[in-house]
Amino acid sequence: MVKRTSPDQPYTISKREFLEGCAAFGGVSAVMTALNGWDMGIASAAEAPPNLMGRSEGTKVLILGAGLAGMTAAYELGLRGYDCQILEARPFAGGRCQSSRAGFTTTTVDGEKRTCDFDEGQYFNHGPWRLPSFHHAVFHYIRKFGVPMEVMVQENDLGYIQHDKANGPLGGRRVRKREIKADMRGYTSELLAKLTDQGALDDELTNRDREKLTDYLIREGFLDAKDLSYKGTLHRGITKFDAMGTNVMTGSKAFAFKEILQSGLGNSFQGVTTIDHPATMYQPVGGMDQIAQGFEREVGEKITFNAEVLELKQDKNNVRVTYRDTATGETRVENANFCITTIPLGILSKLKTDLSDQCKEAMAAPRKMTVGKLSLQMNRRFWEEDDNIYGGSSTLGIPGHTVIYPSYGYCGKKGIIQSAYAFGRAAIVHGELSMGQKVEQALERSERIHPGQFRKHYDNKAFSIDWHLTRFSEAGWTAWSPPDRQKHMPVLREPQGRIYFAGDQVSGLPGWQVGAIESAWAQIEKIHASVMKA
Amino acid sequence: MVKRTSPDQPYTISKREFLEGCAAFGGVSAVMTALNGWDMGIASAAEAPPNLMGRSEGTKVLILGAGLAGMTAAYELGLRGYDCQILEARPFAGGRCQSSRAGFTTTTVDGEKRTCDFDEGQYFNHGPWRLPSFHHAVFHYIRKFGVPMEVMVQENDLGYIQHDKANGPLGGRRVRKREIKADMRGYTSELLAKLTDQGALDDELTNRDREKLTDYLIREGFLDAKDLSYKGTLHRGITKFDAMGTNVMTGSKAFAFKEILQSGLGNSFQGVTTIDHPATMYQPVGGMDQIAQGFEREVGEKITFNAEVLELKQDKNNVRVTYRDTATGETRVENANFCITTIPLGILSKLKTDLSDQCKEAMAAPRKMTVGKLSLQMNRRFWEEDDNIYGGSSTLGIPGHTVIYPSYGYCGKKGIIQSAYAFGRAAIVHGELSMGQKVEQALERSERIHPGQFRKHYDNKAFSIDWHLTRFSEAGWTAWSPPDRQKHMPVLREPQGRIYFAGDQVSGLPGWQVGAIESAWAQIEKIHASVMKA
Repeated sequence: MVKRTSPDQPYTISKREFLEGCAAFGGVSAVMTALNGWDMGIASAAEAPPNLMGRSEGTKVLILGAGLAGMTAAYELGLRGYDCQILEARPFAGGRCQSSRAGFTTTTVDGEKRTCDFDEGQYFNHGPWRLPSFHHAVFHYIRKFGVPMEVMVQENDLGYIQHDKANGPLGGRRVRKREIKADMRGYTSELLAKLTDQGALDDELTNRDREKLTDYLIREGFLDAKDLSYKGTLHRGITKFDAMGTNVMTGSKAFAFKEILQSGLGNSFQGVTTIDHPATMYQPVGGMDQIAQGFEREVGEKITFNAEVLELKQDKNNVRVTYRDTATGETRVENANFCITTIPLGILSKLKTDLSDQCKEAMAAPRKMTVGKLSLQMNRRFWEEDDNIYGGSSTLGIPGHTVIYPSYGYCGKKGIIQSAYAFGRAAIVHGELSMGQKVEQALERSERIHPGQFRKHYDNKAFSIDWHLTRFSEAGWTAWSPPDRQKHMPVLREPQGRIYFAGDQVSGLPGWQVGAIESAWAQIEKIHASVMKA
Repeated sequence: MVKRTSPDQPYTISKREFLEGCAAFGGVSAVMTALNGWDMGIASAAEAPPNLMGRSEGTKVLILGAGLAGMTAAYELGLRGYDCQILEARPFAGGRCQSSRAGFTTTTVDGEKRTCDFDEGQYFNHGPWRLPSFHHAVFHYIRKFGVPMEVMVQENDLGYIQHDKANGPLGGRRVRKREIKADMRGYTSELLAKLTDQGALDDELTNRDREKLTDYLIREGFLDAKDLSYKGTLHRGITKFDAMGTNVMTGSKAFAFKEILQSGLGNSFQGVTTIDHPATMYQPVGGMDQIAQGFEREVGEKITFNAEVLELKQDKNNVRVTYRDTATGETRVENANFCITTIPLGILSKLKTDLSDQCKEAMAAPRKMTVGKLSLQMNRRFWEEDDNIYGGSSTLGIPGHTVIYPSYGYCGKKGIIQSAYAFGRAAIVHGELSMGQKVEQALERSERIHPGQFRKHYDNKAFSIDWHLTRFSEAGWTAWSPPDRQKHMPVLREPQGRIYFAGDQVSGLPGWQVGAIESAWAQIEKIHASVMKA
């Protein structure tokens, strides 16, 4: 986990882009405030599953939840002779590793069913949606199961920024991200180059180093090498293309430095992208659910679907799980030597268990992250055809709103745009809207980024998920405060008798698939060690 | 075309990345020098073919060359009733729009045949290989012909830089591009923030603007908000990942500012990518030749293959083309009302024609760009599995050498790496090497970027193209000097009697497919106007 006192704080947040607004308007301190209570990170410690020596034929392990953690445990233990059974409350495998496509149905905590009606071939990753390249544990199974991968465009400099509340002439004006990036780096390079030229760094740098610095600044900032000034650059954007012309391109005019400063739009990017959100990330071809399906091909026969766990008890030799078959209403009991539970802590803490008070306190400690998303089907890819934007995003700086373009199906006829990505308070508000209200809000807002296009090309098909209102999830992910994590995580990581906790919720990376998989790796290693010792 | 006196000059060059070395070692002036005689640009004037009114049933147009220009002309004129025939010297369509894959054969000017033996599913775009999103003319046909597209990763911050001749401790050291980027932007932000804090900009900026600037610099440079210093950042790179740890990530240590300055490695990037080489570019799924095949599906029956043009004559009413059927050796003659020639000017200028002296002078004026490429099949994707690099490139700063990773087939078993991309003198030298020498040179060099991996995993399959030594091309593209362009292009753009010149060679964008297509659009418009007037 990223330490909250490090200077890196503001950057980890860009994982969920809604804070761009805070940064642009309130500067660093606003971002720092917004970060409180947040829990973000990245990574991958192990690159391969634990190398478990020996087999254990017939030891029965009951796994609660057929998400990536549960299926990882079943797959790996199965290879070592364990008899695994997975109880899954939903009628499908994958946990939150879902993609909305024609026929996909999600159920809310109130029992409302939302079925996606996108056209054939159109889909949206409404759960996890992007992988950085060093999440080795996920890539391990992607390779093993032969899941084809493609680029997910995280950063596209051609995306738009428009902040209606920004000060000065740029307030409410739609600009390309690269215009701001080029101008800010140009003007700041000019300032430093000129100050250097005027002797401001004579005490700090040698002549040779100042010369090298100036060379760098000229290049970095697209400066005029003679007078060290930034006069704009073709590379900030072009207003005219003429492949047959003497001048093929005409560059756009740079914004005034003070105008950008006033607007705060310069705070929408950084020296490098955050480590966990590089410009190019990765996604399975055909939808994130292809990862879940890769696992399901291997362990599908071990899964009992529609199995809602009601009770979790254990004695010295045995774990007993009572569950309800939601299809028939029948109540059933399963016994096993061990149990791995990936049930969201917020849900498990409300069930009947004989777990210790310390463990119950730990389960109840974290917050449930509220997260809402909305995606809209468009009948024409105007963002590609008219705006030259293929993947990436645009932003109005409104918390909860976004315009995220699809990173697949380029040059096709239709496409799915994500138009809401809300967290915290914004997600609660978003979740309370009706589907019609959500769509209207998204159209009204997104129309400002794509005037005359967004509403016109909306194809009357939308899909919305509110993870905190989704049955059997009740949260986007588990949000730990640092003190709670420090206090309670050790309890949840250790065996509670014959019961082991897994899922991204007990990893250092809640909300990331790598956390789910590595949590399973960690727990099966403990179970196996215990079995081998016996 | 980009004006050569603009401060943007160094950046247009990055199209062909070999100049990175010059920039890093010699600073701006070296790049400026290297630019002399160069001809680079981007763009797309027209977004759709000319809207030609009326039809001309039966007017015969003979098109020389089934590259993108020739096929565009045949396709568009065919829609208006023209009787088009294409004479193509090669046994396949597409011109330089080629992909090397199992069975693909290219022939050198000496008659040597090079056949690609890559494994099934492996391919390499040895001609055009990337499209920026605003090359509308190309995207127009991609959409029309339903060519599936995907991202071509132009910039990947995880790629390596290693400059053996760089000064100081970083000389010969392999570093990630993002480490240099983060550190340079960090240190320069620190310098400017501190100078600002010390009052250096008090005369230039208001208090409020200085505060805004400082906010920006803290964010841009990952500075410590308290003392405005750059102390490194997690986002430059991580040395340890632990998804189950309390500290998920451990950041790597920043390089010393003076060490980077001395090394010149900071000159390997700029404030924004060049406009024609954004971080994400685009390529057809399955190979660039899919664009050629899209055209061929439409106009394939109009093409006469193996037709090597020998002579081009015209009188007042007729164009007469004599060609040799290279398969049978027979000589044949075709007559037509008009002729569009896309034959490389350097080749056409050597044929028998009755073109004017002025026109002959124009055809002989441009240089033939020497270009060489080499690609190697690897039996394991070590760059993905071991180095977390999916697409993008690494560089040693050696002219002619590169390590370009494939932007397709991620997480598969094998992959094709481009290990030479040579221009000018370097291409001539490269072209004189035997295949074995080329491979050995590439392995020796690339092994420095991927020690212990590159040579070990080379799969003994390589393909090489030297465009200047390729039959019926004899150049990578046509290189115009600005004065020659100014003097001769108007001649080539105007009808020479009944003969019209097309191809990227007469556009403002030699070497780009958009230039080829738009040249055809421009010329068919003139032919049609002439026919309609008659």
